[in-house]
Amino acid sequence: MNGIDYGIVAILASLLGIVLAGYFTKFISKQDRGTDLMKKISDQVKEGARTYLRMEYKYIAIFVAVVAILLAVMDTVVDGNPPFTAFAFLVGAILSATAGYIGMVTATNSSAPTTQAARFSLNKSLRIAFRGGAVMGMSVVSLGLLGLSAVLLITNFLTDDLGATLTYVAGFGFGASSIALFARVGGGIYTKAADVGADLAGKVEAGIAEDDPRNPAVIADNVGDNVGDVAGMGADLYESYTNSIIAALALGWMAYRADIVPPLLESPVDGMGLEIFAIPILIAAAGIIASMVSIFFVRTKEDASQEALLNALRQGTYGAAVIVAILSFIIVYSLAPNNLGIWGAVIAGLVAGSLIGYFTEYYTSDRYKPTKSLAKSTETGPATFIIQGIASGMESTFFPVIIVSGTVLLSYHFAGLYGVAISAVGMLSTLGVTLSTDAYGPVADNAGGLAEMSGLEPKVRQRTDALDSLGNTTAATGKGFAIGSAALTALTLTAAYASQVGLTVGDFSILQPPVLVGIFLGAMVPFIFCAITMKAVGKSAFMIVKEVRRQFKEIPGLIEGKADADYQRVINLSTQSALREMVIPGLLAIVVPVVVGLVLGPAALGGFLIAAVGTGFVLAIMMANAGGAWDNAKKYIEQGHFGGKGSDAHKASVVGDTVGDPFKDTSGPSLNILIKLMSIVSLVFAGFIANYGLEIFL
Amino acid sequence: MNGIDYGIVAILASLLGIVLAGYFTKFISKQDRGTDLMKKISDQVKEGARTYLRMEYKYIAIFVAVVAILLAVMDTVVDGNPPFTAFAFLVGAILSATAGYIGMVTATNSSAPTTQAARFSLNKSLRIAFRGGAVMGMSVVSLGLLGLSAVLLITNFLTDDLGATLTYVAGFGFGASSIALFARVGGGIYTKAADVGADLAGKVEAGIAEDDPRNPAVIADNVGDNVGDVAGMGADLYESYTNSIIAALALGWMAYRADIVPPLLESPVDGMGLEIFAIPILIAAAGIIASMVSIFFVRTKEDASQEALLNALRQGTYGAAVIVAILSFIIVYSLAPNNLGIWGAVIAGLVAGSLIGYFTEYYTSDRYKPTKSLAKSTETGPATFIIQGIASGMESTFFPVIIVSGTVLLSYHFAGLYGVAISAVGMLSTLGVTLSTDAYGPVADNAGGLAEMSGLEPKVRQRTDALDSLGNTTAATGKGFAIGSAALTALTLTAAYASQVGLTVGDFSILQPPVLVGIFLGAMVPFIFCAITMKAVGKSAFMIVKEVRRQFKEIPGLIEGKADADYQRVINLSTQSALREMVIPGLLAIVVPVVVGLVLGPAALGGFLIAAVGTGFVLAIMMANAGGAWDNAKKYIEQGHFGGKGSDAHKASVVGDTVGDPFKDTSGPSLNILIKLMSIVSLVFAGFIANYGLEIFL
Repeated sequence: MNGIDYGIVAILASLLGIVLAGYFTKFISKQDRGTDLMKKISDQVKEGARTYLRMEYKYIAIFVAVVAILLAVMDTVVDGNPPFTAFAFLVGAILSATAGYIGMVTATNSSAPTTQAARFSLNKSLRIAFRGGAVMGMSVVSLGLLGLSAVLLITNFLTDDLGATLTYVAGFGFGASSIALFARVGGGIYTKAADVGADLAGKVEAGIAEDDPRNPAVIADNVGDNVGDVAGMGADLYESYTNSIIAALALGWMAYRADIVPPLLESPVDGMGLEIFAIPILIAAAGIIASMVSIFFVRTKEDASQEALLNALRQGTYGAAVIVAILSFIIVYSLAPNNLGIWGAVIAGLVAGSLIGYFTEYYTSDRYKPTKSLAKSTETGPATFIIQGIASGMESTFFPVIIVSGTVLLSYHFAGLYGVAISAVGMLSTLGVTLSTDAYGPVADNAGGLAEMSGLEPKVRQRTDALDSLGNTTAATGKGFAIGSAALTALTLTAAYASQVGLTVGDFSILQPPVLVGIFLGAMVPFIFCAITMKAVGKSAFMIVKEVRRQFKEIPGLIEGKADADYQRVINLSTQSALREMVIPGLLAIVVPVVVGLVLGPAALGGFLIAAVGTGFVLAIMMANAGGAWDNAKKYIEQGHFGGKGSDAHKASVVGDTVGDPFKDTSGPSLNILIKLMSIVSLVFAGFIANYGLEIFL
Repeated sequence: MNGIDYGIVAILASLLGIVLAGYFTKFISKQDRGTDLMKKISDQVKEGARTYLRMEYKYIAIFVAVVAILLAVMDTVVDGNPPFTAFAFLVGAILSATAGYIGMVTATNSSAPTTQAARFSLNKSLRIAFRGGAVMGMSVVSLGLLGLSAVLLITNFLTDDLGATLTYVAGFGFGASSIALFARVGGGIYTKAADVGADLAGKVEAGIAEDDPRNPAVIADNVGDNVGDVAGMGADLYESYTNSIIAALALGWMAYRADIVPPLLESPVDGMGLEIFAIPILIAAAGIIASMVSIFFVRTKEDASQEALLNALRQGTYGAAVIVAILSFIIVYSLAPNNLGIWGAVIAGLVAGSLIGYFTEYYTSDRYKPTKSLAKSTETGPATFIIQGIASGMESTFFPVIIVSGTVLLSYHFAGLYGVAISAVGMLSTLGVTLSTDAYGPVADNAGGLAEMSGLEPKVRQRTDALDSLGNTTAATGKGFAIGSAALTALTLTAAYASQVGLTVGDFSILQPPVLVGIFLGAMVPFIFCAITMKAVGKSAFMIVKEVRRQFKEIPGLIEGKADADYQRVINLSTQSALREMVIPGLLAIVVPVVVGLVLGPAALGGFLIAAVGTGFVLAIMMANAGGAWDNAKKYIEQGHFGGKGSDAHKASVVGDTVGDPFKDTSGPSLNILIKLMSIVSLVFAGFIANYGLEIFL
């Protein structure tokens, strides 16, 4: 087999994944959608989600067009090449947007069937919700690998220059990152603004229940779950997934041409042949196959306990990991029998992904000590609850950092910087199934809201709550996985960047003052980014509160339940506000690395990126885990501990939970995008920065 | 003049400073201490502070003895040298403890005279409080420079080897850091545990006012202000002050011997003579003289407004800066006319110190927009108040990081890494007066508490409140200054460490995986440290609450005001608890860098330190400023804004203020110690780590 054949294998695996996603989509469309009221409400949520996507895609279209033109200018006018970076950028962006669209529409389509099924069978309900999530999981990996392979094959065919192709393909990652920016940051602001706005105006001011249909913000709130947790998470991991492969290709190039150009650091894979590029692509293809097999075999008995359900899902993800481990051994053994260390890097990545997931669950689930003792701290009021939550979130950074550090050292030992990138590819290879279990959560959450709003019998809500609680666990694991993989991906992108700017290892020394200053600036930027996104949630939520107040005042009969609220207006408002508030953090992520590189020099940018990745990683874990723990501690109290609902402890826990909302659903996850986007921007503009930097301080 | 003469100049300046401190101590002892009740209460606070110090010094004695023996073993057995590191360590520790003792006893002696004077004259009261603080300011700089110069002269005389002397003298810095650890971390836990414990058990549970003498924790709370804000701040800055000089000497050595050993990075000062060592010492001596002059000329009219009072204090600090600028020009021009860049570095440091102070005030004072709009966010409850506070704290990291980065680049440009160290010396040269304005705050705060507890006429409390509010401003400025100088000092210590482990610039490259992993670990450690110190406050506060409950139950007549509370027991309990909780974070700061260096290698430790300094700096600013802003927003509401005292907005602000307590007074300031201590430990053990490291991953 030659290079083209490997590309075709990857494309075939991707197409199989797309077929499976199509099959599940059809499966869900054939399910019963329940009562007329259920249909009506779920259509409103679906319509709201579509509204958001339509508007978002309008903004994205403008943004993508502008960036594509800039990239084309850089390619053609500045560098004198054909505009392949712009081409790769467009494909990456369009396919990410497509995956997000398919996943989100299917997720909104799945909530009514899930609720309806919950009236009769917990397990059938779980199955529908899981398959609803699996459409997102399979779409992301299939479209990601399909697009990347296609761009590689086409560009290489047209240029007949592998080195140049690998430079252009970074554009694909930039495209993926741009969509992730809109989906994750914009979506994160949307979802929490709608959530906080709905709570403040409804629960607090008007005194009506959560999910009460009289609240004009209630549909926006439900849309938000899909926008943030489905589309946002999907785009985030699409970005990690494709970028980890891109970084492996770029770092593979260093080893491949080690005979011509001395690499930055010597590595065990130096001098390998073209198989160095085939391996990451084939591992990804193996991951798609493994995910399909394991998704299909996730089955439980009809009377399974919740623990058994959770185990069924877990067996899916662990099963996929085992299959990838076996297939990747075959791949490495056939293609590079003298470099079996590459396989070691794959295993390091797979193990690291599972471990990070475990520790995230440990620090956020109410089945373990940290969240239980956090719940106890509500006894002395909201202040101690918040202090303990922040302390616990900070403490929870320990294991993920140790795990990622260990993975870096091990995989570097096995196969140099290329090995580090391969460990990221390995970690993300089972994304098809891990993302499925992840996207299942919001479907179950929405199903619960739907049961409430349609006034179904209480046992339905109980069942959907059970599913939702299961979803919380998988969501926690998924969040940890998203953060860990983002850190590893961003790290390898940074290494890829460093390999392209034509400096020596010593130039990147921490003793060089520009690098040192870069490290200081890099440590700061995640904090600034969080500050901006948190304030954005506050501003947007305030606008929603004002609109809800207006509707209660101006729509006659609304508060009595005799007139319908104008849900659409709140949805439009949230969407506009979220997208507007996203502009500044988004620009920050794109402009700052270029400015640092041009003003302080390419070495300073290296220090900047490493520190931003390190600090952003730590801060993201802290915020996600503190937020998750507050949320679950509140739920734990609501189960009747420490006085249960309505007690002072419960009131204190509500304050902590609200603080945690932007922590865990806006700022924390947005940091994943920040660190990857800044790294891929640096990689795309590496040549530009190296040639045109001022470097006034070097 | 030769080297010894310069040392004698420094010693003379220090002795003058000590004379001034003695004069002020006598001045305060001659003041009227007011009514019998005032005397009794202030004696209790003084006795409490002494109790704390006695116990603390018992722990310190053991700790210092153990470390001194270890250092002596390292010097003699391992390296085959006389135990000069141990000697320097002992002198550094003992003098720091002495300065802390003098400063704290004087501060507690000053509160009664300040209160008494406030019954007749606002200005006289200010003057007493300021002079009470000035004893701490002058003791710190005088004993610091005196001890350091003496150790340098003695060790150089005995060894007759300047290079070895400069290695040994790092032990002095380690001694200073060890005391700072106890004073700042232990003191920080003590002060907030007592504060939170007194509030929870008194205000919340028993429903009695703050500072009510029936509350058994009230004296401990007042002791805490002195322990944390006077002794803690003093030891923190003693550490920065002496360590910045030590780093300048160590980095000066690199330039001095540039003809023999090629330095890590070339620098404009390469090849300078012995004057390279005289300059930092003489600048420090000039700073002492400048501080004395400006302290003496801080005077106001009897009917001055509060703005005028603040300006008088400011003129003191700015005046000292101008004097240092002039004197240091003369010093550099006389000793190194070809290296006037060194003077540029001094100016960069002086300007940076003032700028950081200004921006700290901007983000925490209720006279500016951030705190005003933060106060407004209480209208939607405690959760939004906390989110906004954290966001604002994160945002406030921008300018300090930019300022320190600019200072590093400029001073490096002027005089290489030596210049960076000189900028830290310059920033800290006016410490005598800046620390005086800083230590004035707790004296005024205590005077207010005393007025309350002794039942003096309301106008006294009004006056002391005015003084306290002035103190809040200077405290904010001082805190920013402490953080900024800690970052710059730690940075130069790290550079000094790197210069001593015998590696090349390229070994410290961020592309070397051990360095990269070091950066990840370094970014995490400040978070872990904060988690531990925040949890320590919670644990200690809980013990105090239990004791207060016990006393209310078991002491007959206490709650009716007929029997005295057992204050001493609460003080003992707080002290023991604080010192016990300090052990783990303290060990962490000392052991972790050595372990990182031994296991991952000396280059990884370099990456670790840089990242820890960067992230610790950013996190410290965020925590200090968020805490300060919450506190001042609460006070702003208490002045009658947004409903004033008792309103829902006020209740929300109390929650935020309590969250902020460990932020701004325990964890945030403790980070200053963490980053400096880890750097100086690395410098002290540099040779050991270089020779005995496993470096399994290199």
